[in-house]
Amino acid sequence: MNYSIIRYITGWVLKFEAAFLCLPALVGIIYHETDSISYFGTAAICLVLGVLLTLKKPTSRSLYSREGFVIVALCWTVMSLFGALPFVFSGDIPSYVDAFFETVSGFTTTGASILTDVEVLSHANLFWRSFTHWIGGMGVFVFILAITPLLGGSTMTLMKAESPGPSVDKLVPKLKDTSIILYGLYIFLTALLIIILIILGMPVFEAFCTGFGTTGTGGFGIKNDSIGSYSPAIQNTVTIFMIMSGINYSMFFILLRRKWKQVFSFEEVWWYLGIIAVTGGIIFSNIREMFPTAGEGLRHTFFQIGSVITTTGYSTTDFNRWPELSKSCLVLLMFIGACAGSTGGGIKVSRILILIKSIRKEIATIAHPNQVSKIRLNGHVIAEDTIRSTNAYMAIYFVMMSLSVLLLSIDGYDFTTNVTAVIASINNIGPGLESVGPFGNYAFFSPFSKIILIFNMLAGRLELLPMLVLFSPACWRKR
Amino acid sequence: MNYSIIRYITGWVLKFEAAFLCLPALVGIIYHETDSISYFGTAAICLVLGVLLTLKKPTSRSLYSREGFVIVALCWTVMSLFGALPFVFSGDIPSYVDAFFETVSGFTTTGASILTDVEVLSHANLFWRSFTHWIGGMGVFVFILAITPLLGGSTMTLMKAESPGPSVDKLVPKLKDTSIILYGLYIFLTALLIIILIILGMPVFEAFCTGFGTTGTGGFGIKNDSIGSYSPAIQNTVTIFMIMSGINYSMFFILLRRKWKQVFSFEEVWWYLGIIAVTGGIIFSNIREMFPTAGEGLRHTFFQIGSVITTTGYSTTDFNRWPELSKSCLVLLMFIGACAGSTGGGIKVSRILILIKSIRKEIATIAHPNQVSKIRLNGHVIAEDTIRSTNAYMAIYFVMMSLSVLLLSIDGYDFTTNVTAVIASINNIGPGLESVGPFGNYAFFSPFSKIILIFNMLAGRLELLPMLVLFSPACWRKR
Repeated sequence: MNYSIIRYITGWVLKFEAAFLCLPALVGIIYHETDSISYFGTAAICLVLGVLLTLKKPTSRSLYSREGFVIVALCWTVMSLFGALPFVFSGDIPSYVDAFFETVSGFTTTGASILTDVEVLSHANLFWRSFTHWIGGMGVFVFILAITPLLGGSTMTLMKAESPGPSVDKLVPKLKDTSIILYGLYIFLTALLIIILIILGMPVFEAFCTGFGTTGTGGFGIKNDSIGSYSPAIQNTVTIFMIMSGINYSMFFILLRRKWKQVFSFEEVWWYLGIIAVTGGIIFSNIREMFPTAGEGLRHTFFQIGSVITTTGYSTTDFNRWPELSKSCLVLLMFIGACAGSTGGGIKVSRILILIKSIRKEIATIAHPNQVSKIRLNGHVIAEDTIRSTNAYMAIYFVMMSLSVLLLSIDGYDFTTNVTAVIASINNIGPGLESVGPFGNYAFFSPFSKIILIFNMLAGRLELLPMLVLFSPACWRKR
Repeated sequence: MNYSIIRYITGWVLKFEAAFLCLPALVGIIYHETDSISYFGTAAICLVLGVLLTLKKPTSRSLYSREGFVIVALCWTVMSLFGALPFVFSGDIPSYVDAFFETVSGFTTTGASILTDVEVLSHANLFWRSFTHWIGGMGVFVFILAITPLLGGSTMTLMKAESPGPSVDKLVPKLKDTSIILYGLYIFLTALLIIILIILGMPVFEAFCTGFGTTGTGGFGIKNDSIGSYSPAIQNTVTIFMIMSGINYSMFFILLRRKWKQVFSFEEVWWYLGIIAVTGGIIFSNIREMFPTAGEGLRHTFFQIGSVITTTGYSTTDFNRWPELSKSCLVLLMFIGACAGSTGGGIKVSRILILIKSIRKEIATIAHPNQVSKIRLNGHVIAEDTIRSTNAYMAIYFVMMSLSVLLLSIDGYDFTTNVTAVIASINNIGPGLESVGPFGNYAFFSPFSKIILIFNMLAGRLELLPMLVLFSPACWRKR
């Protein structure tokens, strides 16, 4: 294990975090809030630590998979550990475990909150909560790779460990350019949404927070009823941008380059949109009578679907009170999640497609044992390695879920709450059902359960393996 | 597809079913019940159909995987379709869907019942319910292979499709001898249990039914409170025999041959016993205060654990009222299930071990990319094919479970009921939680939901692929 490079990159990440923390500090200054001091103070701590850790260049630049996995898992944890400090310093979240939970929930774009009343928070704190979503959405390493050379080559392994999905699409030959394109698109989408929201009458501060939470597929609301009290036009805009943010960013790039053939063969995105349409039909016909007009029913249906499949977690209505069929549809969508290469979480549509295609292949092999067939996705043959790692992902996913439900049940809350809390954490959604439903929160869990859920959120965002590697003694042994 | 062999073997299975049906008919005669007529009548129908189907020998004896899978799935369905008739004829279960549900639940050793009061059933019907468990436990094809030559060679594929677990152990070179040893051990265990139960004071008829349900890991009770009203000695005896029935039968064979080295390296069985011991400790300390003495607490703890992990489904107390931690432990055991090569259901301990070992291998590959390692189980290297089919099994398992929960939710019952009903069906357990808890039943579901659960029970017993192959158009096309 190359310890020096782990130290060096962790230091750089802390320096970047110091810069990120200046934004909420400035927001605090604008609104004449004393919380600015908490943010500048934390930024100073991060900067000093970051500088100390990067004083000495790494002795070796070798960066293999295991270093990549360890660095990404470690940096996300460290970022959250320090990012939690302003909440504690400001006194808005006095318990450190709670503040840590909230920050991890922010960076991992989960949006699960331990707060019972978000409207009492300062502007600086509200901004920081939403801004962590935005940083976590596209990823901090993608950002760093886009603006600094860092180490020159061999940083693909960091991108691979941080990006969602079974494999990473390099849009252009150079990784740095890929990162720039991704963040460019991300900034464009976010800015566009913020402008539209302001035009539709949302106050500027709220438009920024909602914009970060939407394109980052985060879900922290700045109102206690999430997006419920905004106008239908705003809700529909958020729906459209949530669904767009769940699309594989490669699709936007292909669209911009007008490669129509590739657009049509991009199965994952078409399936994603198809799933939204079909469940939309089912849920709408199921809940139609709960709302005075069909328009209102449609609006709530697609808002909730968009929020759940992209694992954003905003809500406009309490779907915990919807009929069982609609709730089961939403739980199924929680598992499926968004497209690979998007800012959304969950298992990802492409993994589901790979699994279903391997089931079909298994049956075809029984029907015609001599026929050799390959699994294709989005027009490309899927490598055996990708299939193997998809299977490993699924195995880890269910083992981790089962053990987490078991550990949560020590607290004694009901089965549906425990199961959906774990599903909502590992898939980075936010709300579940029953006590953790859209109008509930995670405050009542014991600190032990909160730590389990924190682990699930980080593991879910980083696609499971990095967190396991971080805690695997085998990986830490010197070569 | 070789249609003639499918016809021929289905005919033979019907002839065997005719013979099986004579047993409850005789029980009816002993107790002077008119239900005998229903059983003799159904036996006659099966015999006539069986003779007609076997009049012409198959044109070709070729029996590949797909024929094996189709035959096993088809015969289990046909056996259940005809086995349901006596319940309808006798008037005890007037609805045919209900009778079909009850029979599938019997043959698949699930033990889920649509009856609200089993004590009103005739002796013949009670006997047939329990006897279907016993036939289904070890398998009808294993039985047929043990006593008839049927087709000479190439019948391994039938055994493979019917036997539980990721791979089949041939205990001795000849398949017929393997079948004889398996059924010999099975009959011995069952007879031993029945004798002990009679000595402990259980009436002879009840001892037979309980014996069949225990060694077959079925779970149909003959009393409304399952095993609750029997003496502690009887309950403990049933516990021991349930746990023994969940052990891989190869272990008994190795024990008889005194191959101690193999006994100690039989990981799966040791893990199985270890899991029982550990969850026993957790649940006992969790429910200790609910019972007046520690002895009673221990008895109920291990009875319920033995019943759930072996997927039997008997109960001595209503574990639906136990604290959440104990319930979650039991739900976890429902998934794990018994050992491969036993009469129990579930995912099987060996599959769980293969999955956990492949996760460890995946992490090890990241830590040491150049190190090549093989997955070993019970002292043998696991073939790549077995790992691939284990992954396919898991993928099918979760896709089928998710879709079934979705379809069940149309009825509108609560989430925990739907989820645990599906878990209890696909793993062949019987009771779940809430409305389908140990003191509940499946009567309230709509016929549509019952058909979904029937499919799950059959798919679960036959380890998923056969039922999918049966309904796959690709497999039915002529070569």
